Order: sequence, then structure tokens, then C-alpha cells
Amino acid sequence: MSELLNKLEWRYACKKMDPTKSVPQDKVDRIVEAARLAPTSSGLQPFEVIVVTNAAVREQIKPKAWGQAQITDGSHLLVFAAWDNYTADRINMMFDLTNAQRGGTNEGWENYRQMLLKNYPARTPEVNFEHAARQAYIGLGASLIAAAFEEVDATPMEGFDPKAVDDILGLSARGLRSVVIVPLGYRAAEGDWLANLKKVRRPTAQFVTEVK
Amino acid sequence: MSELLNKLEWRYACKKMDPTKSVPQDKVDRIVEAARLAPTSSGLQPFEVIVVTNAAVREQIKPKAWGQAQITDGSHLLVFAAWDNYTADRINMMFDLTNAQRGGTNEGWENYRQMLLKNYPARTPEVNFEHAARQAYIGLGASLIAAAFEEVDATPMEGFDPKAVDDILGLSARGLRSVVIVPLGYRAAEGDWLANLKKVRRPTAQFVTEVK
Repeated sequence: MSELLNKLEWRYACKKMDPTKSVPQDKVDRIVEAARLAPTSSGLQPFEVIVVTNAAVREQIKPKAWGQAQITDGSHLLVFAAWDNYTADRINMMFDLTNAQRGGTNEGWENYRQMLLKNYPARTPEVNFEHAARQAYIGLGASLIAAAFEEVDATPMEGFDPKAVDDILGLSARGLRSVVIVPLGYRAAEGDWLANLKKVRRPTAQFVTEVK
Repeated sequence: MSELLNKLEWRYACKKMDPTKSVPQDKVDRIVEAARLAPTSSGLQPFEVIVVTNAAVREQIKPKAWGQAQITDGSHLLVFAAWDNYTADRINMMFDLTNAQRGGTNEGWENYRQMLLKNYPARTPEVNFEHAARQAYIGLGASLIAAAFEEVDATPMEGFDPKAVDDILGLSARGLRSVVIVPLGYRAAEGDWLANLKKVRRPTAQFVTEVK
């Protein structure tokens, strides 16, 4: 088995984190960097990551997430927030940044920009948000894998009130909507009902179809 | 920089694959296994992966995807297909499998099953499909990282007609909807406009916010 598959086997959705342990900042930085480097559709990176260490803010978020204790027992809370819409400004920002970084442009690339400018802003905000949310989940996957490489426990959570979290963090004013939150920390020695249970996945025969 | 971040830097959306090279099956297996092991909401794994090697089928798919040549120049085409809906049968299948694999159950787990059975099938199929699609994107992220670890080129594509691909592969009858396709192969020595261009990502300061 490869190193990557070993890491995927190792990780699990930690249910009880040790509140006395803190994840070193360099590890958090690499976990977030994995999301930043992750691929996204047309390279638009239509999401941001908010890293909450502030204890009072995490205490505010916890009751909006079924009181899940990892939010305050962990040392860091990652909030993945997708763009609420694709706008011409946002599309142009990424194309302009790309041209600046690559020191030039070309006709094919500029035609592609025009195609996105014509099609994306014309769609409903909800369609665009759902598309952006999918991209955020690629980043989520990358961060969860990065956490495993760092031997940091990470528990992705969708069970929270996104509007309430958006309000607490002031995300709406920034054109962002929270889609998934991820406490980072270290598993407690006791009290985690899931820690010693077998990881269950459908057998390959029920997950993969070959068309030969 | 960590090994994982190095792999994320290495990978790119290969634009021209060498049609004379084929990805070994053990590498493909590990790339798909990463998606199978990836975490998903409530562990439901609401997607499947179709691995297409059949040349005629890939030739059929190509014109439904803007004629992108990697679909036939690569050796394998992964099709990530999300569940079209959450049904009681699908939810029960995963909870029953989990109980069978863990050799028992408990009240909290069964209460959680009942909560999902009450809430998910009552939502519209479209809401459920969008939720399932997000989970498929976690798997997509895992497979793209796995491909990089295998030094295999992988080009995620959303630019295709999902209904047409569903028809070609008979996915609707199986309650699946294609969401993203990924040719696997090896970059050609020449003809890839993107191969030597800098990878561009927003600077960390425009991607991460700290709440301390």
C-alpha cells in the first residue's frame, strides 16, 4: 500500500479531541497550503479558508453546530467558505493575476476569459455558489489529506447553521458562504467512541465499474 | 516543503497526453482506491467511479466534451458519478454494511440513521444530488493527489455534457449522474501549452483569514 493510502486509512473523523494539546502553527500552515494549491475549475479558486483560533469566537460557533465539542477542544477551526457568486470582477481578478504571474497572455487564454465572463455571471447566484462549493470540497479533501500527513486529527463537519456562522465571522459582507468547518487537534486518550472502530467503505466491486 | 505539497506543486491539468503511453493498472487501482477511502458526509460515499478504457466508448464521449484530446490520448478515463438522490435504501445499505463490518451497533448510531432517514429522502432530489456531488469532489481531490504521487498526469474536466455521458455509460438507470471526468495518462514531450507555464494561485494573504 502506498504512503498516501496509508494516511487515508489512518485518518478518521475524530470525535473527542484533547483540549490540552495544540497543533503547531507550521502544521496548520501546511494543511491550509494544501487547500490553496488544490486544483479548481478554470483555476478560479472560488473559496477562502478562515482559520479561527480565538476561543470566544469558537464558543459562539459551537452551539450553532450541535454543540460538537471538537470545535472548542481542538486548537484551530478551519472554515471553508465558497464565493456566493461568480462576478466579472472575480473572474477578471484571477485572469489578470495569471497574466501578471506568467508575464504575458495569449489569444486562447483571453478567449477563454471572455467565454467565462459571458457564461458565469449570467447564471443564478445559487448555481454559481453550488459550483464554487464543489471546488471548495476539492480543497477540503486536500486539507484532510494534509492533516493526515501531519498526523493531526481533523473532523469535517457539515452539521452547522451556515447563516449563523456567516454572521459570526462576517462572511456575507465579503461575498462568502461557509460550506464546511474542520476542527484541528489531537485525539483524546479516552472518550472517542469512533477511535477504535473499523473504517467502513463499500467494497471496490460496489464502488468501481470498469468499461473495457 | 512537505512531500504532499511537492506533489501538489508538481501536478497540473495536462493539456496534451502521449497516446503511445499507458498507465499501469496498479497505479490506476491506487488512484481509484484513494477516492474510495476518502471521507464523505456521514460515511455514505454517495458516488461511484467508472473507469473507461474501451477506446470506442472514449471516442463517443470525446465529442460530448468539446473534443478534448486527453480523453482518447490518455489510457484511462475516470468518470465520477454522484447518486441522483438519497433514498432510504441507500442510507440503510451503508448503515447495515457498517454494522456488519463492525459486528454490532449502538443506540446513538441507530438514532443517527433514523435522523438521516427522516431528513434526507424528504429533500428534493436536486438538493440531495448537489450534496452528493460535493462528496464526489472530496474523492476527486483524493484521486488527483494520488495520481500525483504515482507521477501520473490527470486532467479534471467539467466541460462536458453530463446527460450525454450518462446516456453513453447507462448511468441514469443506476441512479447516477456524472459530475466530473478525469483522463489519466502521461504528458506528451511537445504540444502542451500549459506544461511550462507557472502554476498560479492567489497569495496566502488573499486566501486565508486568521481570527485570533
